[in-house]
Amino acid sequence: MEKSTKMIATFLLRLLALGATVAATVVMVTSHETTIVVNLEFEAKYSNDPTFKYFVVANAIGSLYGLCVLLMSSKSLLKRAIVTLDVTVSMLLASSFSAALAIAYLGKKGNSHAGWLPLCDQVPKFCDHVTGALIAGLAGVIIYLVLLLHTIHTVLNPLFP
Amino acid sequence: MEKSTKMIATFLLRLLALGATVAATVVMVTSHETTIVVNLEFEAKYSNDPTFKYFVVANAIGSLYGLCVLLMSSKSLLKRAIVTLDVTVSMLLASSFSAALAIAYLGKKGNSHAGWLPLCDQVPKFCDHVTGALIAGLAGVIIYLVLLLHTIHTVLNPLFP
Repeated sequence: MEKSTKMIATFLLRLLALGATVAATVVMVTSHETTIVVNLEFEAKYSNDPTFKYFVVANAIGSLYGLCVLLMSSKSLLKRAIVTLDVTVSMLLASSFSAALAIAYLGKKGNSHAGWLPLCDQVPKFCDHVTGALIAGLAGVIIYLVLLLHTIHTVLNPLFP
Repeated sequence: MEKSTKMIATFLLRLLALGATVAATVVMVTSHETTIVVNLEFEAKYSNDPTFKYFVVANAIGSLYGLCVLLMSSKSLLKRAIVTLDVTVSMLLASSFSAALAIAYLGKKGNSHAGWLPLCDQVPKFCDHVTGALIAGLAGVIIYLVLLLHTIHTVLNPLFP
């Protein structure tokens, strides 16, 4: 593949990753549902759970970082810093996605051993929103993993022919 | 730093990472406590929660991988594969740690919005065991991150002096 084609592919992947992290942040932040359970008003929102807050913060950081990298010159001397930051952001996104998935799964299925009841029957719209945010978050993680593996392939190729 | 010193440092880091992932697996698997709540016997064990199972599987995979890399010749031509696998294993460990932490935090603090009660007052020994496993898991994640950043530094250095 030509160098310019590779650069366009990387640019497009970074654009997709930015879209995914922005979507994950926005969809999670706007997830909100109010329902009445046994005469008590119950409001489900992302800020009720520290894990969902972490997911929002991680994806917001990922979005900001993705935007900065896209705006930077591709010939920048900061390439080593970018690989290091790619690794760090990938791990941050993967960790926030997994933590949010663990809590979302609990909200869907509950845990009978712990006596934690499922909530999605009460707040289905909230659960759909969270599921959407998680799908976008997973897309972000996968795209960053592909970018990382591509970088490793490109950088290590000349050393180990 | 000389090349041999660097190799010894990498070897020691990999040995530490292996110790951390093995400890995380063993401590989580052996976490177990039986208590009586309102005349009902309640057994807390890691296999009651899918997230803790994922933590055990991820750390077992990390341990097996760590052992294979330690036993392999350092002059092996598989170095590119090792970097790729390092990235993958790091993300796997980080994701399993975060997911398990999310559930452990819920067990400790509960979530009043969701009506999920904390459990650690009932099964303190189980919670201590899980905390120990999480600390070992976090150590594994940090060591793998250091290994990755070291590799990036070493590999990219000659290209960007």
